[in-house]
Amino acid sequence: MKEYAYKLKMKVRDYECDLEGIVNNANYQHYMEHTRHEFLLEAGISFAEMLEQNIVSVVARITIDYKTPLRSRDEFLSCLNVRLEGIRYVFCQDIYRVSDMKLAAKGKVDVVCLVDGKLSRCPELEEKLKAHCPEL
Amino acid sequence: MKEYAYKLKMKVRDYECDLEGIVNNANYQHYMEHTRHEFLLEAGISFAEMLEQNIVSVVARITIDYKTPLRSRDEFLSCLNVRLEGIRYVFCQDIYRVSDMKLAAKGKVDVVCLVDGKLSRCPELEEKLKAHCPEL
Amino acid sequence: MKEYAYKLKMKVRDYECDLEGIVNNANYQHYMEHTRHEFLLEAGISFAEMLEQNIVSVVARITIDYKTPLRSRDEFLSCLNVRLEGIRYVFCQDIYRVSDMKLAAKGKVDVVCLVDGKLSRCPELEEKLKAHCPEL
Amino acid sequence: MKEYAYKLKMKVRDYECDLEGIVNNANYQHYMEHTRHEFLLEAGISFAEMLEQNIVSVVARITIDYKTPLRSRDEFLSCLNVRLEGIRYVFCQDIYRVSDMKLAAKGKVDVVCLVDGKLSRCPELEEKLKAHCPEL
Repeated sequence: MKEYAYKLKMKVRDYECDLEGIVNNANYQHYMEHTRHEFLLEAGISFAEMLEQNIVSVVARITIDYKTPLRSRDEFLSCLNVRLEGIRYVFCQDIYRVSDMKLAAKGKVDVVCLVDGKLSRCPELEEKLKAHCPEL
Repeated sequence: MKEYAYKLKMKVRDYECDLEGIVNNANYQHYMEHTRHEFLLEAGISFAEMLEQNIVSVVARITIDYKTPLRSRDEFLSCLNVRLEGIRYVFCQDIYRVSDMKLAAKGKVDVVCLVDGKLSRCPELEEKLKAHCPEL
Repeated sequence: MKEYAYKLKMKVRDYECDLEGIVNNANYQHYMEHTRHEFLLEAGISFAEMLEQNIVSVVARITIDYKTPLRSRDEFLSCLNVRLEGIRYVFCQDIYRVSDMKLAAKGKVDVVCLVDGKLSRCPELEEKLKAHCPEL
Repeated sequence: MKEYAYKLKMKVRDYECDLEGIVNNANYQHYMEHTRHEFLLEAGISFAEMLEQNIVSVVARITIDYKTPLRSRDEFLSCLNVRLEGIRYVFCQDIYRVSDMKLAAKGKVDVVCLVDGKLSRCPELEEKLKAHCPEL
């Protein structure tokens, strides 16, 4: 397994599964969002404080590759890295099924910052991210 | 069929169904919330304007009887009445499967108002509700 | 705090919160369903095995009293007891906010069993439930 | 506006919005799934019948570009085209806010078919798709 800046163990809830008995595709996006927010919280990054400094972060694009479907009661490890691409903060988010560590889904989430309403890099955010992702 | 103050036709979306191929129980609550909000909108009741007058409305209790499960692609009619019980605005919300008009779910949603932080009846709300529910 | 047959610690996820910054009402029903299923799993009760014996269990009614709203990132303890009322298995499900152990929501979920298509008590289920809920 | 093979008008439901008052990102995936399923239904494509012929279709990848956030009660037009890329059926799914026809989200959903367990093109599916998407 690759190195990750953050890992969160979670478990499929039955209501997240659909007709076919597998986790509905949109729920992987929920898992990734929750993982990202938990990571940012641990990194000491507060959306509320950022807002006070007139910094807004938004998801500009998401790509998810579906590899192996998770099923009812599966445990999974939701992992995350961040890198910088131009002015985009790119979160690479991989989800592994715990039972055999097979890759269930591979996500790429591009986040951009609006500082005073203008798209730009955000030094406050980068500083804190760097403490947790040395490769940033 | 009974008389209702408001009716909304909707259709089951596949992602609302679970492992057993029927609509997950919690989604009926979503259907009822959406119906209630659409009704209030039509009745000219705005949460935003109420907030400006320091009026907050909250759901205090919900009861749902599950009668006939809705399935993928079923159309349903979500119906609503309101009555007053003490300081509670009670929304009676019935959901019928369109194909045979069988009752799918029967909800009772108790809403209370906090006016300046105190539980009390809300004349502004009642006036607008009465225009749509003569029996109130 | 009362005695409970089962307790599960969970944490609010941001996507479960709505416009007002509090957990959307329907999500409490999701929390309760997940808690119930985890409890049944621990009690060794398998829906799949029950189905093979032609036993189907369905939620007939749910009542939730909303007491204190949970917010983004709140941890909560989802607790459960079961008792028998006629042919109904009644799950009493209380959710407490961990920070101050205030009651957030109080649920009552009535489950009935169809054995060979007929509403009736289910000895197989009761035996396993009793091992975890002596008061049943 | 571009030409589309299928269009579906929908309306944001309040419970789909999050803390910031805008539709949660994962819900666009729900909108797109519902639109795709409605389109396939109209095109006479039945998952159940396909399964009987041992044909399974799965989403292999999804990409969504978020352009303009939808808000509570916004109406939107969910539009769709399909094209073939190798063995992938690529659904291009654009969502427009009705009030000003601004592009809210732009999706690309890659669907693959497993015929008798093997990844391959599916003539039965293509025939029906072609009747609705001449450019396929």
